[in-house]
Amino acid sequence: MTNFASFADLRAAVHEVRQGDAAAAAQVAAREAQLTKPPHSLGRLEEIVAWLAHWQRRSPPRLDRVEVLVFAGNHGVTAQGVSAYPSEVTAQMVANFAAGGAAINQLARLAGATLKVIPLALDRPTADFTRAPAMDERAFLDAVTAGHAAVSREADLVCLGEMGIGNTTAAAAIAAALFGGGGARWAGRGTGVDESGLARKRAAIDTALAKHQGALDDPLKIAAALGGRELAAILGAAFCARAQNIPVLLDGFVCTAAAAPLTRLREDALAHACAAHVSAEAGHAVLLKELGLTPLLDLNMRLGEASGAALAVLILRAALACHTGMATFAHAGVSEKS
Amino acid sequence: MTNFASFADLRAAVHEVRQGDAAAAAQVAAREAQLTKPPHSLGRLEEIVAWLAHWQRRSPPRLDRVEVLVFAGNHGVTAQGVSAYPSEVTAQMVANFAAGGAAINQLARLAGATLKVIPLALDRPTADFTRAPAMDERAFLDAVTAGHAAVSREADLVCLGEMGIGNTTAAAAIAAALFGGGGARWAGRGTGVDESGLARKRAAIDTALAKHQGALDDPLKIAAALGGRELAAILGAAFCARAQNIPVLLDGFVCTAAAAPLTRLREDALAHACAAHVSAEAGHAVLLKELGLTPLLDLNMRLGEASGAALAVLILRAALACHTGMATFAHAGVSEKS
Repeated sequence: MTNFASFADLRAAVHEVRQGDAAAAAQVAAREAQLTKPPHSLGRLEEIVAWLAHWQRRSPPRLDRVEVLVFAGNHGVTAQGVSAYPSEVTAQMVANFAAGGAAINQLARLAGATLKVIPLALDRPTADFTRAPAMDERAFLDAVTAGHAAVSREADLVCLGEMGIGNTTAAAAIAAALFGGGGARWAGRGTGVDESGLARKRAAIDTALAKHQGALDDPLKIAAALGGRELAAILGAAFCARAQNIPVLLDGFVCTAAAAPLTRLREDALAHACAAHVSAEAGHAVLLKELGLTPLLDLNMRLGEASGAALAVLILRAALACHTGMATFAHAGVSEKS
Repeated sequence: MTNFASFADLRAAVHEVRQGDAAAAAQVAAREAQLTKPPHSLGRLEEIVAWLAHWQRRSPPRLDRVEVLVFAGNHGVTAQGVSAYPSEVTAQMVANFAAGGAAINQLARLAGATLKVIPLALDRPTADFTRAPAMDERAFLDAVTAGHAAVSREADLVCLGEMGIGNTTAAAAIAAALFGGGGARWAGRGTGVDESGLARKRAAIDTALAKHQGALDDPLKIAAALGGRELAAILGAAFCARAQNIPVLLDGFVCTAAAAPLTRLREDALAHACAAHVSAEAGHAVLLKELGLTPLLDLNMRLGEASGAALAVLILRAALACHTGMATFAHAGVSEKS
C-alpha cells in the first residue's frame, strides 16, 4: 500500500502524474466519424468516449467495472452552528448506506456500479478549524492514504463522493483559500441552513482564513488545515486513479473542492476527472469555472453521497453503447454527407 | 381508431384535453419529504416523479412500459438545397433502425424502452412549401391520425422523435410562423449544411412565410402548410398521449416545433410534456424559451431520432428508483433537520 510520509512526499508524487493516451482518443474519434449520424451530432457523448479512452489508454474504453466510493468524516467546525443537521447524522447515514436505504444505493444499483462506503474515524471529528488546524500533517496523510487505498486497481471508472455533516463549510474554506473571495463568495446553504446559519458559516470561513494565513501558500497545508478526513481521502483517491489509468467522475461542491488542491501542485492533475454535474450549492458553479470543468448534468441536486456522479454514469454508459453498438455508413448502406 | 375529419374536428378535440391529478403529485411530494435526504436535495429528480404522477394520475408513477416512437417523412423543400444529405437517407436510416444500427437502437435498449419506427409515405415527399402548401388538410390529418394511432394505450411514458432529411427547415418555418422572427431567427445547420446552404435555408423559410401568409393565423394550417408528415404525426401522438394519461418526453428542435402548434389551440396542451434536452440546433433553445420548457439535459446533441428523449429516460428511471427505493427518516433512524 502506498503510504505518504510527508507533504513533500505527496507533492513529489503528484508532480509525476501519468499522462493519458492521445492515440486511443484519436481511434475513438476516427470510429465516431464512420458511424451512421452526422459528424459530431452526439455532442458530448462522443467527447466522453474519447475522454474515457484517453485515460484508460485503450480503444474502445470499457465500463465493466464502475466503482462508487463514498468517504465519510466528522467535522469539529459544526460547533460553530454551521449545519442544519446534528453531527450524529454522519454515522446514521453511513448505517443507512449499509442498509441500502440512501439515494446513492438506488443510483449505484441503476448505474451498475459497486458502492463502497469508507467511514473515517467518525468518533474523532477533526478539530474546529476556526481555532486550530482541522488535521495535522500525519492525520491528513493517513486520510489521503485511506482514499488512495480505496481505489480498486481493476476499476474502469471511479465515482467519488462524500458524507459529512459540516463539510460544505470545509469545502468553502478550501475553495476560498485556493481561489480567493472569502466566506461571502463560497458559503452556501449546504443541507439547508437558515439565514443566521449561513451568516455563521461565512464568519467561520473568514475566521479560519485569518487564523491559518501562514498555511495558505501551500495547497496541501490548506487541505489539512481547512479540510476534513473525507475530503483528504477524495484527494488521495483522485490522485491514485490517475496513476492507475482510471478516469474519475467528481460529484458536487465538496468533492470538487476536495480534489482542487491537486491542480495547484500540477495544473493538469485533474485532467482525468470529469465534473458529473453542477450542484445547487452556491459555490459549485463558481468552483467549476475556476477549474475549467464543464459539468455533464445540471439538475439542481445538492445531496452529495456521489449521487450526481452515479447519475452521470448512466450518460457514460449511453455514450459507450452508441460508440460500440452503432453501424457504420458503409455497413448500413447509408449515404454520407455530400 | 380516432380519425380526424377536419381541422375543426381536431381543434375541438384539443380544446377538450384531459387534466392531470394534482393529488397524485401531492402524494409524491409528501413521500419525498420523508426520505433520508435534506428536503428538495434531489432537485429536478423530485420534480420529475411528481410530474409523472400528475399526468399518469397515480402515486407512485410507473415506468414499466416506455415507448419510443420515431416518425419518418420526406420533404419537397429539399429541392431548395437546404440539407447536407440527399433525401434517400431518410429511407436508408429507417432500414438502419430496423437493422438495429442507429444511435436510437442503442439508447432505447439501454433505457429499457420499446422502439417503434413509423415511416410515413416516404415515396411521396410533401410538396416544396416555397411553392405550395406542404400538405393539404386531408394529408395532414392522415399523418396526425397515424401519430395518434401509434401510441399504445398501456404505455407509461412516450418518447417522441423523428427522422426526415430537410425537416429542420420545416420545423424552423413552423416556429417562425408561430413565434415570429423569420428564417434568420430559426434556421440552423441541421445535419450540417455549409454557409451557402444555411443562406438557402433562411431564404426558403422566408419565401414560404410570404407565400402562405393567409394560413398563418391558424396553427393547424401552419402545421399543414409548412410542416411534414412526421411532424404532423408527432402532434397527433403528443395529443393522444394526453388523452390517455401518458406523460411525454419531447426530443429536439424538430419534435418540439412539431408539437408547438397545440399550445396555440390551448395554452396548457403540452403540460404533460417535458423537454428531454436542449439540442445544439440553433433554434431549439429559443423555442423552449418561447414554450416555457426547461430541458433536462444539455449535451450539445443534434441527432434527432428521439436520441435525447431516450437518454432522458435514464434520468427518469433514476428519479423513480430514488423515490420508491429510499428509506424514510423514521425507518432508517436518521435524525431530521433541526
